[in-house]
Amino acid sequence: MAKNVLIIGAGGVAQVVAHKVAQNAKEFGTLHIASRTVSKAEQIITSIREKGHKVEFTAHPLDAMDSDAVAALIRQIDANIVINVGSAFVNMTVLQGCIDTGAAYLDTAIHEDPAKVCETPPWYGNYEWKRREACEAAGVTAILGVGFDPGVVNAYARLAEDEYFDKVESIDIVDINAGSHGRWFATNFDPEINFREFTGTVYSWQKGAWQENKMFEVGREWDLPVVGKQTAYLSGHDEVHSLSARYKDADVRFWMGFGAHYINVFTVLQNLGLLSEQPVKTAEGTEVVPLKLVKAVLPDPSSLAPDYVGKTCIGDLVKGTQNGKPGEVFIYNVADHKEAFNEVGSQGISYTAGVPPVAAAILVARGTWDVKKMANVEELPARPFLELLGDLGLPTRVIDATGDHPL
Amino acid sequence: MAKNVLIIGAGGVAQVVAHKVAQNAKEFGTLHIASRTVSKAEQIITSIREKGHKVEFTAHPLDAMDSDAVAALIRQIDANIVINVGSAFVNMTVLQGCIDTGAAYLDTAIHEDPAKVCETPPWYGNYEWKRREACEAAGVTAILGVGFDPGVVNAYARLAEDEYFDKVESIDIVDINAGSHGRWFATNFDPEINFREFTGTVYSWQKGAWQENKMFEVGREWDLPVVGKQTAYLSGHDEVHSLSARYKDADVRFWMGFGAHYINVFTVLQNLGLLSEQPVKTAEGTEVVPLKLVKAVLPDPSSLAPDYVGKTCIGDLVKGTQNGKPGEVFIYNVADHKEAFNEVGSQGISYTAGVPPVAAAILVARGTWDVKKMANVEELPARPFLELLGDLGLPTRVIDATGDHPL
Repeated sequence: MAKNVLIIGAGGVAQVVAHKVAQNAKEFGTLHIASRTVSKAEQIITSIREKGHKVEFTAHPLDAMDSDAVAALIRQIDANIVINVGSAFVNMTVLQGCIDTGAAYLDTAIHEDPAKVCETPPWYGNYEWKRREACEAAGVTAILGVGFDPGVVNAYARLAEDEYFDKVESIDIVDINAGSHGRWFATNFDPEINFREFTGTVYSWQKGAWQENKMFEVGREWDLPVVGKQTAYLSGHDEVHSLSARYKDADVRFWMGFGAHYINVFTVLQNLGLLSEQPVKTAEGTEVVPLKLVKAVLPDPSSLAPDYVGKTCIGDLVKGTQNGKPGEVFIYNVADHKEAFNEVGSQGISYTAGVPPVAAAILVARGTWDVKKMANVEELPARPFLELLGDLGLPTRVIDATGDHPL
Repeated sequence: MAKNVLIIGAGGVAQVVAHKVAQNAKEFGTLHIASRTVSKAEQIITSIREKGHKVEFTAHPLDAMDSDAVAALIRQIDANIVINVGSAFVNMTVLQGCIDTGAAYLDTAIHEDPAKVCETPPWYGNYEWKRREACEAAGVTAILGVGFDPGVVNAYARLAEDEYFDKVESIDIVDINAGSHGRWFATNFDPEINFREFTGTVYSWQKGAWQENKMFEVGREWDLPVVGKQTAYLSGHDEVHSLSARYKDADVRFWMGFGAHYINVFTVLQNLGLLSEQPVKTAEGTEVVPLKLVKAVLPDPSSLAPDYVGKTCIGDLVKGTQNGKPGEVFIYNVADHKEAFNEVGSQGISYTAGVPPVAAAILVARGTWDVKKMANVEELPARPFLELLGDLGLPTRVIDATGDHPL
């Protein structure tokens, strides 16, 4: 029986998810999208109509911080798969709504507490993994972090394990956005979330233990397909926290590319205290959270899409041994900002984050990934996911001993 | 008969003025200081007592935006000389209070309209000079812009005219602060006023006309006594607007020294819109003037004084001809931040701005500068002012054909 889908959220990634679900409507039953501001969900449906898709799609108002409201909506529309691409603060309430109703749960990023800048490792252990038993008892499929990174890069690691190495020694995930939005400065997604990623401690898993660094403390130049030589910096990221559990003996690091201009602007704002989440009082007595003003003066990330040009390259350099013989493989995807905009009206960063949860939803609908428990992506079979992603617009390529070739 | 003095304002410059007036109490009658927040004026009097001065000094609450209140206070205490070192927004109301009562008026910077970032030239012509006839009719001495720059640098130009050249061809005023406050970033005076100076058009008087540039567009390396090689940028400044009226045929430029770090921070804040005076609404609906938040996160300029070390060098390079023979002279002062703090509890920037109006007040009290009309400093005899300034802690030096020597 066809499975009904509910998307939660109405930002840039939700837009991509909704378009991709609409393109693949034959895989699903009825389609729904819910947002606190229902007009934003309706705008997304309008943009789908403008691309000529004739599918039924219904918008609903929803306070996703209220798990009873989530459960009530799931029951009302008989949703079987919930794709949560709302704010980072609603994971636990949406998950609870799924556990209460039996719907499958998918998300693309860890839960965050708005009052904390940086959690202690492992991040999933603080919230999501505490619900593992509850998911298994209820027979609920919950797939955590199934965007691009985390998500596809976890599957790349699993592919390397499955097809290249009997022992994985290191996983270096590299995320380069070589695109240009033409603005003096802008963040590619919500500035509040973007800057939060870099103001706290950078955790990496090396030599069997958590290592701590500061942001921009450790940089390395990479020479990658299409985007060329790029400097990326050791950064904290969700997938390090789950991959380090499966690959305990491997070093697991995440590298994010930054230009000197981004780092300069970030450093000035950070050192002046303008990225703080603690309110400051002006001479006139107004209380202001500096980060919220910075967000207000920066360009709206969704406004960047029409002018965005260039490519992204995100991949895993995995090293290991097979029958005692050392080797390495680089598994990656290259995406194009302009192509993404032409297809779904979003820039490449939103596109790479929004297509993977739809591939996962299709695999849940087909049964391949309907595992009736909580799982991170590396715990699920990688090939069917990566092959389906290729069909949906995010083809995987591999550089191994035989050269650079499609998966 | 001894003249009673009223200081208006209670910031860093007012602190210097009050200390210097107390040190020279024998030149005056009763001493008074007024501020919107009377406790700030009282703190200044306490700091004078802590230096061992036993003079009578009275603090008064005053809304200096209300000219009737200014006049009432002048009458109440029978003030003869008003030294206005309050905010840039109160000049016209304080001046009116003086015209209404006959008290002499001194200030250190042009009047500003809080709603405007940058006035059109000549700045004095927009407000102060419109009261020239009123001052003359009332027999009121009003000396405009008698800080260091504007102020002492205007007297340097007049000295060059009086003693070096029958034709002045160019006046380049150079202001270098080679001191260090040890903070990652701070402004030396109110950030709101500091940044306002540099966000508008830079006006200079060249080739007999106003020229327009952007801030940091025109830079030049100077090699100055004590502070050495320093880069300074063509900047807008008060004194260009009065000197260009007296020296119509000369080029009149103002150069302010900036390090690469200051320019970088300024450029980031400016380009992000964080120096704007127009309110911005956050996602939460709070209206915030970005510049007021920037002010709130930066160090309080008065907190810098105890750690400030190093020197300032401010001077005029004047070129001209005498009997047809070309020549040049550099007239300057070097001040020391630490010495200023030890003497009056303020850093060097406040010291150089606060001592000159006290010298002017003494000359008014003695009659030398009691001209019974409105005047900019270059319209008054320069030698008595510069010689008195030397006695008060700001000695003048001269580099001319005979070498580098005291005035």
